[in-house]
Amino acid sequence: MNIKTLAGQLGFSVSTVSKALNDSHEISTETKRKVLELAKQLNYTPNAYAGSLRNKKSNNIAVVLPEVADSFFSQAINGIESVAQEKGYHVIVYLTHEKQRKEQTILDDFRSGRVDGVLMSVSCETTSTDHIRRLCDKKIPVVFFDRVIEDIAVARVVTNDFEAARKATIELMAKGCRQLAFVALSDKVAIMNHRLEGFKKALQDKGLLFDDRMLVNCTSSEAQTQKALKHLLTSASRPDGVLVSAEKPATDIYSICNEIGLNIPADLKVIAFSSMQIAALLHPPLSTITQPAFEMGKTAASLLFKALEKSNFKLEREFVVVPSLFFERASSK
Amino acid sequence: MNIKTLAGQLGFSVSTVSKALNDSHEISTETKRKVLELAKQLNYTPNAYAGSLRNKKSNNIAVVLPEVADSFFSQAINGIESVAQEKGYHVIVYLTHEKQRKEQTILDDFRSGRVDGVLMSVSCETTSTDHIRRLCDKKIPVVFFDRVIEDIAVARVVTNDFEAARKATIELMAKGCRQLAFVALSDKVAIMNHRLEGFKKALQDKGLLFDDRMLVNCTSSEAQTQKALKHLLTSASRPDGVLVSAEKPATDIYSICNEIGLNIPADLKVIAFSSMQIAALLHPPLSTITQPAFEMGKTAASLLFKALEKSNFKLEREFVVVPSLFFERASSK
Repeated sequence: MNIKTLAGQLGFSVSTVSKALNDSHEISTETKRKVLELAKQLNYTPNAYAGSLRNKKSNNIAVVLPEVADSFFSQAINGIESVAQEKGYHVIVYLTHEKQRKEQTILDDFRSGRVDGVLMSVSCETTSTDHIRRLCDKKIPVVFFDRVIEDIAVARVVTNDFEAARKATIELMAKGCRQLAFVALSDKVAIMNHRLEGFKKALQDKGLLFDDRMLVNCTSSEAQTQKALKHLLTSASRPDGVLVSAEKPATDIYSICNEIGLNIPADLKVIAFSSMQIAALLHPPLSTITQPAFEMGKTAASLLFKALEKSNFKLEREFVVVPSLFFERASSK
Repeated sequence: MNIKTLAGQLGFSVSTVSKALNDSHEISTETKRKVLELAKQLNYTPNAYAGSLRNKKSNNIAVVLPEVADSFFSQAINGIESVAQEKGYHVIVYLTHEKQRKEQTILDDFRSGRVDGVLMSVSCETTSTDHIRRLCDKKIPVVFFDRVIEDIAVARVVTNDFEAARKATIELMAKGCRQLAFVALSDKVAIMNHRLEGFKKALQDKGLLFDDRMLVNCTSSEAQTQKALKHLLTSASRPDGVLVSAEKPATDIYSICNEIGLNIPADLKVIAFSSMQIAALLHPPLSTITQPAFEMGKTAASLLFKALEKSNFKLEREFVVVPSLFFERASSK
């Protein structure tokens, strides 16, 4: 019993049957149905197909996220769902709450086959990649989106972090800012470093020096982050502009400015990486670098399903950049 | 082989063994270990214990939600996690996207033992309770929070929906509103009806009639909801005040007012049920009825774990009301 017998009985070519088993877009739904039906009937399970069957057993894909109280992540989930639903898969959301240890436990748990594939954005604490390697060793496909790790061969979907940050910084300088601050979510996450590099490059091109005191790294403790931001905004050499690389600290800055009586944008211009749909409703409306969250989730999920459906798809080589959009609003005018 | 034999062999009282099997806090870890070890060795499985073992096998609890892009739900998840983490359980989030059919598929999938217990807020479409009954039949404990169904004996954690809505309506009338509208998420969800009843009661006590045209029911289609809200706000007999029973339509109303040039609060006063942490940063700051989201999640999870740990706990009788707080801000002044 091999693929030739199958092809012979169906009156199709071997290539057609092979493509049908790998769910190729070149093959019609009707042909696929016929091939799969006979394959099932004859209990035909070549390696690739068996692999595919093995990978598909739970019909669940996992989305591992630092948190959901962030517009980017909640919209990305919707993008992921839009693909999964079509494929008849469940999406299950696991939260790391920005803890590397929790992320490790969650991923290790997947090795038992609880899920068929994993989409993830790493926690701001994650420095080790052992737990991700252990998952890859089990042949469970993984796609990183947004917050990626770069020193491991895993598929990645990101935005143009360096360029978006560079342009936003140029924008702030064009509006008259001379003392610019950068708020990072963490110094451990690669995309944050790209954004910081873009920020530094813009300063450098303008002949401005980067001042270490103008860099705030958020932590998983909200209270600590707020303290650091307040310190920045009340210091003698406080910035007159700030590029914020995440949503939560941007709204923290609004609250602190309200509290200490700094006027946005007169005293401080603000641009933030944020997918917040109500950015335009804030007082003042917040200028944002908006990642196409839904698109990024959708793209990441599409890659994952390609890997689940085609055993010869080299998932780990995939690297997709989905550009962000800049929305200028009153906070940076 | 019964509990007496077990007690005899261990040299403990029957009561001690029984409590140990039910994981009572009165019994030391060491004693529990001894009892469980011998029980396992002798394959001792009285009904309650078998049930308990069966319930505990996955170490996962499910949180089934309509969506996560809502501050209430994202904060409630954190409250749930705070309890689950302490108990060594994983929290897995499943999204129904407000579809009854999706909710049914998800719950039916749990019957295989994928999760040990379920915390849920029903979709705005959910009218049938069959899928919940099927889960209960499998002895998988369920706790509803926020969006509950009332015609089924399941534990419930809610806020004081009727009273909070009544008081907010009185507040709007005290500020001069005479034509009040109510925006409901759905006419199928019990808590929405309680809120609507509270709204109507306040009108009635003031001698005002409830006008059907002043009621907008949101749907799972955002575009449809926005159209209905725009229709309401541009009609000849448009309201001068609105009580909004969910977060998303409240921000939709802000956007529409911006678009059509209605001033909040001069032309329209707004109070919304919302746990949005940035309500105070909106323009104008939004008055909210804020559900204690974290507390409600925590309470619901605590009830679920009580049921998982104590086989004689009558979970289905539990009904907890956690009161909301009213924050008056510029939108209703």
